[in-house]
Amino acid sequence: MSGWLESLEGLAASRSKAGLTRRLRPRPAGDPVVDLAGNDYLGLATHPAVIEASIKSLPTYGLGATGSRLVRGSAVAHAELESDLAGWIGAESALVFSSGYLANLAAVRGLTAVCDLIVSDAYNHASLIDGCKISGTRTVIAPHNSPADVARLLDAHPGRALVVTESVFSVDGDLAPLAELHEVTSARGALLVVDDAHALGLLGPSGAGGVAAAGLAGRSDVIVTATLSKSLGGAGGVVAGPAPFIRHLIDTGRTFIYDTALPPAVAAGVHEALRTARAADDRRALLAARGALTVSLLGAAGFAVSPPAAGVLSVLAPGPEAAVAWASDCYDRGVAVGCFRPPSTPDGSSRLRLTLNAGVTDADFARALDVIVECAP
Amino acid sequence: MSGWLESLEGLAASRSKAGLTRRLRPRPAGDPVVDLAGNDYLGLATHPAVIEASIKSLPTYGLGATGSRLVRGSAVAHAELESDLAGWIGAESALVFSSGYLANLAAVRGLTAVCDLIVSDAYNHASLIDGCKISGTRTVIAPHNSPADVARLLDAHPGRALVVTESVFSVDGDLAPLAELHEVTSARGALLVVDDAHALGLLGPSGAGGVAAAGLAGRSDVIVTATLSKSLGGAGGVVAGPAPFIRHLIDTGRTFIYDTALPPAVAAGVHEALRTARAADDRRALLAARGALTVSLLGAAGFAVSPPAAGVLSVLAPGPEAAVAWASDCYDRGVAVGCFRPPSTPDGSSRLRLTLNAGVTDADFARALDVIVECAP
Repeated sequence: MSGWLESLEGLAASRSKAGLTRRLRPRPAGDPVVDLAGNDYLGLATHPAVIEASIKSLPTYGLGATGSRLVRGSAVAHAELESDLAGWIGAESALVFSSGYLANLAAVRGLTAVCDLIVSDAYNHASLIDGCKISGTRTVIAPHNSPADVARLLDAHPGRALVVTESVFSVDGDLAPLAELHEVTSARGALLVVDDAHALGLLGPSGAGGVAAAGLAGRSDVIVTATLSKSLGGAGGVVAGPAPFIRHLIDTGRTFIYDTALPPAVAAGVHEALRTARAADDRRALLAARGALTVSLLGAAGFAVSPPAAGVLSVLAPGPEAAVAWASDCYDRGVAVGCFRPPSTPDGSSRLRLTLNAGVTDADFARALDVIVECAP
Repeated sequence: MSGWLESLEGLAASRSKAGLTRRLRPRPAGDPVVDLAGNDYLGLATHPAVIEASIKSLPTYGLGATGSRLVRGSAVAHAELESDLAGWIGAESALVFSSGYLANLAAVRGLTAVCDLIVSDAYNHASLIDGCKISGTRTVIAPHNSPADVARLLDAHPGRALVVTESVFSVDGDLAPLAELHEVTSARGALLVVDDAHALGLLGPSGAGGVAAAGLAGRSDVIVTATLSKSLGGAGGVVAGPAPFIRHLIDTGRTFIYDTALPPAVAAGVHEALRTARAADDRRALLAARGALTVSLLGAAGFAVSPPAAGVLSVLAPGPEAAVAWASDCYDRGVAVGCFRPPSTPDGSSRLRLTLNAGVTDADFARALDVIVECAP
């Protein structure tokens, strides 16, 4: 048996040869780089009222939650946030987790208490895929955004099934056909889980999300998950749905019970961000205008750009190394853009991922688009 | 097919009948209750320097990290924290996650790239068990704290194996025989993962943890995981070990890559807590004295109390409902104690779990012990 560190070095060499080595690039406080890579869509992570709410909570709540939500971790800040999240999303009840990843693991695994088949969209996020895996429940992959295939898979299954999708997909930014999917699931007694992470705050009335935009808010056979770290600018995740399911997660959800709660001061900041986000139709209009501008400008320059359903745009690159070089050149000129390569991309292609951010000034945004064009491979 | 909500109500009724319904009890900011239930062992969650460090970072870093560590989420605050965590724990390298749960999933799954058998202690934490499950690698459960059984299981396996344990177990607070376990694993070319969540800050030189206390810091075949939410008073988790393994997690760790990073302002607060914790021999001495006092006082009152290896004491209760009533009565008199019932307890028994907290005053601590005795069933 050779040494394990040598084995790891061998795997690292293979990744390096395939252009798949990843690198952390820590940013300083007050980073001057123009952000077209993060998920702070509404620009609320640095909003003065949000920061103030968190700062105000820190001395009395402390830095961390000091325990599981079921021991010492539950604060009034969580309860108030959960109440308003449920109201905003239009669900009966909501439960906050310390991360969106853990929320997705809990939602999918929790629903397999009453479902014996999972139908999972081919482009789903890693946390949903891991939720399927950790549930130990039979899972079939449905072709991306295909209600007809979902219907076919459900028709072949006699028991209750769970259909898992995102609303706005995280890499390409495209929208799931949620209304059609729900027609398919509800007609067959199946449940629908929608990860609304990239749509909450961006789509729907008052930014209530992709599920609300599809007219499905409050349906008793739809469960919504989301992060609190994207349009809400903070950290954590949420599962929202009928009260009996939320109670089920409180009693049995391993990633809820055995995890330290989200810091109360973060919950307080997110709560303030939620209030701001509900009233931020101006910010949502700005993002829509910028999305259209980006598609028109980059399209005119000859790039393959998908029109964004919310705040994510995908720009195809010739390959993983070209994508890395493109993003790196932009960064050197003060513009951060996302660079997605396999295995992060569901279809095996490499691309830039641009995200819209209402906190970026018009001048910086215009300059960023110029830089992206000028740095193209 | 009956309705899914009716099925969930049926499951809830069964749990209720078994005394296993859980309830969230949100605490207010500045809660006056004496805390013998949380994991803020060193009392650093509300330490003025810790709070100040986080408050100072919030306006410039923002509330959240705004993305994955690999996109926009990595801040200088993370890099500085990781460097000092590695130095403290005595490892070559360290990687911070947004939760200890996600750190454990990554560590166990990551190591199965070079291991084809997992030997997991029977009393391991849910996150370690889930790490085994999600890895898809064959897992055998070893009897609790039994190096001889681990040796037997390793001897029966021709390939490289991974042995997974906690240092201080989270429910009973007992210590794993780490030196003996390492003798067994190193003689057989196996790797050892130690979840040091309940020992970091409490045991070892300068609180460097249970692995350091056992003389195993820096061993190339030992991986340490821990939370940043217990003795460090914040949130998040860490994996520490040889640099090639940390690089492996950066490149391939799904719960690292596809998760929003720990908020930089939380990382900054935790970093200040780390500096304080390293110098806090006085607080560690206080906890040791209080542990001895608790065992002597509750023992004299006729209770079965285990002597604490670090900051966790277990007090047996007659059953799940008696344990709930006991904890609830204490709470009504201003003392929070943990109440652990199946399935949180590895052996199926119910108990109070008391945790020591250096932030509690001597007078409050003495009163809390009186209340526990007076409320006993």
